[in-house]
Amino acid sequence: MLPDWINSECPAPSEAHRKAALARQAQLTKPLGALGRLEEVAVELAALQAVDRPGADRAPVVLFAGDHGIAAQGVSAYPPEVTVQMLHNFAGGGAAIAVLARSLGCPLEVVDVGTLADEPMRGIVVDKPRRGTRDFSVEPALTPEEVAFACEAGRRAVARQSGHSPDLVIFGEMGIGNTTSAAAIAAALLPCAPAQIVGSGTGLDADGRARKARVIGDALARHGVNTDAAVADVLAAVGGLEIIAMAGAIIAAAQRRWPVLVDGFIVSVAALVAVRLNPSCRPWLLFSHRSAERGHALVLEALGARALIDLDLRLGEASGAATALPIIRLACALHNGMATFAEAAVSGREA
Amino acid sequence: MLPDWINSECPAPSEAHRKAALARQAQLTKPLGALGRLEEVAVELAALQAVDRPGADRAPVVLFAGDHGIAAQGVSAYPPEVTVQMLHNFAGGGAAIAVLARSLGCPLEVVDVGTLADEPMRGIVVDKPRRGTRDFSVEPALTPEEVAFACEAGRRAVARQSGHSPDLVIFGEMGIGNTTSAAAIAAALLPCAPAQIVGSGTGLDADGRARKARVIGDALARHGVNTDAAVADVLAAVGGLEIIAMAGAIIAAAQRRWPVLVDGFIVSVAALVAVRLNPSCRPWLLFSHRSAERGHALVLEALGARALIDLDLRLGEASGAATALPIIRLACALHNGMATFAEAAVSGREA
Repeated sequence: MLPDWINSECPAPSEAHRKAALARQAQLTKPLGALGRLEEVAVELAALQAVDRPGADRAPVVLFAGDHGIAAQGVSAYPPEVTVQMLHNFAGGGAAIAVLARSLGCPLEVVDVGTLADEPMRGIVVDKPRRGTRDFSVEPALTPEEVAFACEAGRRAVARQSGHSPDLVIFGEMGIGNTTSAAAIAAALLPCAPAQIVGSGTGLDADGRARKARVIGDALARHGVNTDAAVADVLAAVGGLEIIAMAGAIIAAAQRRWPVLVDGFIVSVAALVAVRLNPSCRPWLLFSHRSAERGHALVLEALGARALIDLDLRLGEASGAATALPIIRLACALHNGMATFAEAAVSGREA
Repeated sequence: MLPDWINSECPAPSEAHRKAALARQAQLTKPLGALGRLEEVAVELAALQAVDRPGADRAPVVLFAGDHGIAAQGVSAYPPEVTVQMLHNFAGGGAAIAVLARSLGCPLEVVDVGTLADEPMRGIVVDKPRRGTRDFSVEPALTPEEVAFACEAGRRAVARQSGHSPDLVIFGEMGIGNTTSAAAIAAALLPCAPAQIVGSGTGLDADGRARKARVIGDALARHGVNTDAAVADVLAAVGGLEIIAMAGAIIAAAQRRWPVLVDGFIVSVAALVAVRLNPSCRPWLLFSHRSAERGHALVLEALGARALIDLDLRLGEASGAATALPIIRLACALHNGMATFAEAAVSGREA
């Protein structure tokens, strides 16, 4: 039901390059460990890229947008038409991720994998099996074929980035209602009670959150996917096209040896899906930020992940990953550009 | 005893520009608050710079270096000659801050305010009252005149940056033994027990930390500066020339309406000194990172400060401030570059 390539083993990071990078860090003119997580990130990236001098200059951003039938159930503070309006805003350069990508020199591709848009839009790639998902409070969100299509759309998006020769890739999402789909997937996969994972999304109050949790709990029960369900069944029942596309994109990127800088809650749920489908993609994931969205901490914990920054962000759109990117670039610059004790004729620790 | 200008009132941030910046944030195409601390930083900077469109492009870094007589007491994992060796490494571009400043396009000035160096060095400004401080375990570290000189050296360094028209300034430090001086100052000013504030510095073990705390406790008792002492007396007793220079620089920068992006433990202690000497400089301080050095959390708390990043850094050299700078730049880019709901024709929240 899911495409075969989903199961293909991802390559392993280079342990030889990890060792060499660790040895270099011990020689740079600073107390060992004094650059903390900047050292760790540089070493990790050296292992993933299998190079002596890691880099993060070429970091294309792919944003996947989709709409959600569940939005009809009042689970978002914004109306569904905002998704398509935001597509124009991405293409026009006024959205947060457009500003960030421009500032950072990152190419930005926006893929409509399932919004309600009828017409093609300038600057937006359209690659969708249908307009929006079905309302999962009344029927399964997607057919198995639509799930498979979204995986393929993710892989096609990755293939289109190869011209950029990425040092790493960033995936992001936009879609009114998609924290509800993401929370439903996470509640099924972790598993945990919906109320534990449901957050405010774009700005729900306590009543709204309670309704959202109830909608999710009822749907998981109705579709019979709240315990031990196959991942593909969960995705068909409550999935979102942009979330599934990102899961496919993550696996496809890892299969190409491209590190993936994971954004916030929704991308982390896509990462959880990817790791459950193909655990060999896990080493290729770097985690950028800890979102203010409630469920993110649980998903990060399930993935054994530690985020770099924690700035109370809860926008999505890959904005957290983009914000963390300069830190990774500086980690590389330090690893590659600092002098060693010998080069600088600086004394080491006293015996 | 301290120069008179230390007491001159710093200007207040512009509340009108803060209000305008808050109003703009509410109009940008994102749920209000969804960019978390990036919104706060942009608003804060707009108020400090008294502009509609804040910026952080022009961010000169001034590094103050000094040596410490207390290093003779085995309080550092590195020998004192490392301070002067590192001056060469700063000038030669191989030190962490040199790499970071280059990557970020920040001008870097290194000021020897009191190292053991005998000779001037290419690329280093020399502005010092003496070579190193005295060993404060046996005598006061500095005379009142030397303390005043270091304050003036800080102010002179600030004046030299005016050609850069700074959006903000970053101060940093280097000096073997200076976490001991900083911890002693903090223990006296907060006040707290030396053992609460003493950390590993460049890499002491538990025995080393205990020795360091004992050295500090004995010195504060010997010099009678452990309760209610005047700040200037604390500085003369256990101060470091680079720490005092930074305190002077912070006040001088705030008096010019330049926001100061504060680095880690030692710069934060300098900030604490500055705020105790002249509380009107406090609004001009932005806090970049939470250091792995033990006492930093206490000093941040005393200053009512919340750092932006927490990456287990403990190098000094302004490396934490430099690492946080791109986040501030992105916060400005978002504030200045995002479209409003009206401009992008995006619907707001449902009523």
